[in-house]
Amino acid sequence: MSFLQNEIRQQPQVLMTLLDREIENAQRIAADLRARNVKYVIMAARGTSDNAARYGQYLFGAYNRLPVGLATPSLFSVYGQPPRLEDSLIIGISQSGQSPDIVAVLEEGQRQGVPTLAVTNDPDSPLAAQGDYVLALHASEEQAVAATKTYTAQLAALALLSCALGDNPDRMETLQRVPQAVERVLGDEQLIARAVERYRYMETCVVLGRGYNYATAFEIALKLKELNYLIAESYSSADFMHGPIAVVGSGFPALVVAPSGKMFDTMRDFTLA
Amino acid sequence: MSFLQNEIRQQPQVLMTLLDREIENAQRIAADLRARNVKYVIMAARGTSDNAARYGQYLFGAYNRLPVGLATPSLFSVYGQPPRLEDSLIIGISQSGQSPDIVAVLEEGQRQGVPTLAVTNDPDSPLAAQGDYVLALHASEEQAVAATKTYTAQLAALALLSCALGDNPDRMETLQRVPQAVERVLGDEQLIARAVERYRYMETCVVLGRGYNYATAFEIALKLKELNYLIAESYSSADFMHGPIAVVGSGFPALVVAPSGKMFDTMRDFTLA
Repeated sequence: MSFLQNEIRQQPQVLMTLLDREIENAQRIAADLRARNVKYVIMAARGTSDNAARYGQYLFGAYNRLPVGLATPSLFSVYGQPPRLEDSLIIGISQSGQSPDIVAVLEEGQRQGVPTLAVTNDPDSPLAAQGDYVLALHASEEQAVAATKTYTAQLAALALLSCALGDNPDRMETLQRVPQAVERVLGDEQLIARAVERYRYMETCVVLGRGYNYATAFEIALKLKELNYLIAESYSSADFMHGPIAVVGSGFPALVVAPSGKMFDTMRDFTLA
Repeated sequence: MSFLQNEIRQQPQVLMTLLDREIENAQRIAADLRARNVKYVIMAARGTSDNAARYGQYLFGAYNRLPVGLATPSLFSVYGQPPRLEDSLIIGISQSGQSPDIVAVLEEGQRQGVPTLAVTNDPDSPLAAQGDYVLALHASEEQAVAATKTYTAQLAALALLSCALGDNPDRMETLQRVPQAVERVLGDEQLIARAVERYRYMETCVVLGRGYNYATAFEIALKLKELNYLIAESYSSADFMHGPIAVVGSGFPALVVAPSGKMFDTMRDFTLA
């Protein structure tokens, strides 16, 4: 079995460990942040971790009513003209915790005296050192180049914080059921293998998602690029209609992430269009 | 001459008109915003206008030290769970001013009592009606489907506001010289026509830019999709290294936006890599 396949299968265990070991830490961080009257969240990340940040943007926006901006790390590192971060929580997300420009964003947060949180698989990393708070992923070493178990662990860590910041115990309970749900999906490996046969010789595609699954569309496209060397581009279905749809001719493959929920109708309209 | 070519050539005149007619308005808006103690900017836009917002993110961040978040319109329109917008300026950017989900973001801003600004080519549009302030583009009707003159006008409108909010008169003077600079570039049409011959049969490419020209890379890629039906994907050069670079084989075309300035060295390193 490849490292990659092995790590994909570790996900339920990783998620269970993370939710178990970090729940008290998340509740302590949440209590602190409420006391510090945080009004905004700024997230800094690259690659797969940036897709976790995209998820966080919808999550903290909808459930905690916090506007979330994705940091522009070059303002901190290359231009040396960082914005004023007053009333913000700065979250840096990095599997390895090594990315210098993500570390630079947290460093500036500390310099300006606003709370900083590192979400990382390595609690001894430079990123963790710049965090007033650390949420550890508990994913053990990731040996495959493409991140899988650390991505879903990052989503879980952000969801854990969002639940702890909110006051709806049902959400925390639902979150605890996620590892089992992931386990069930992984049990359908043969079903998935049959379903993807159709795409065996695809060379390019678009991946569409919206809302919470905007991040999912981005992460699917990134994996298709990293692992299958496909030209895969991801969009919000709403943005896709504003120009990029022009590239689509007959037979052009489009993967559409359309789970149930409030977004389903907007995605269904799109797939029928 | 096509509508498109005609509108591309109108740019110096549009920019000159905008900078002339809106400077006092921008200064009045800036004075108001300073009095209202704005600490954050949230921008809502789609397609080409969203690329103008990307430029604004670096501009207001670096020169006005304001963190800028790009709105997640579906939180306002589909989920009906908008974030708290306290201390924010909400900017909606839309050529036509018709986009319902962008209008919804400004509407929510007004409901929460925070300042709202519409940047639009139509001061009688629904978007303008939801703006406490309006910056008009003065670009006359855009007849081509692909936006050109209204895109550069949007950049100029944001730059005008940034200069008015700041206290460096040199920047306002430099901005006034932009229409002439655009005129000079448009004078090189034959040179450009010769340079692009090399790419006549290109079917896919990446476009890389960073910092202020992150937006430029996105807008170039969008135009190549809309007008040439190419699969063109845009990245920050830093993000590109985190995975997507895997799709690049020998001969894969990459357009790199690397003007002089602080970003030049990071882009040069990249092109040599």
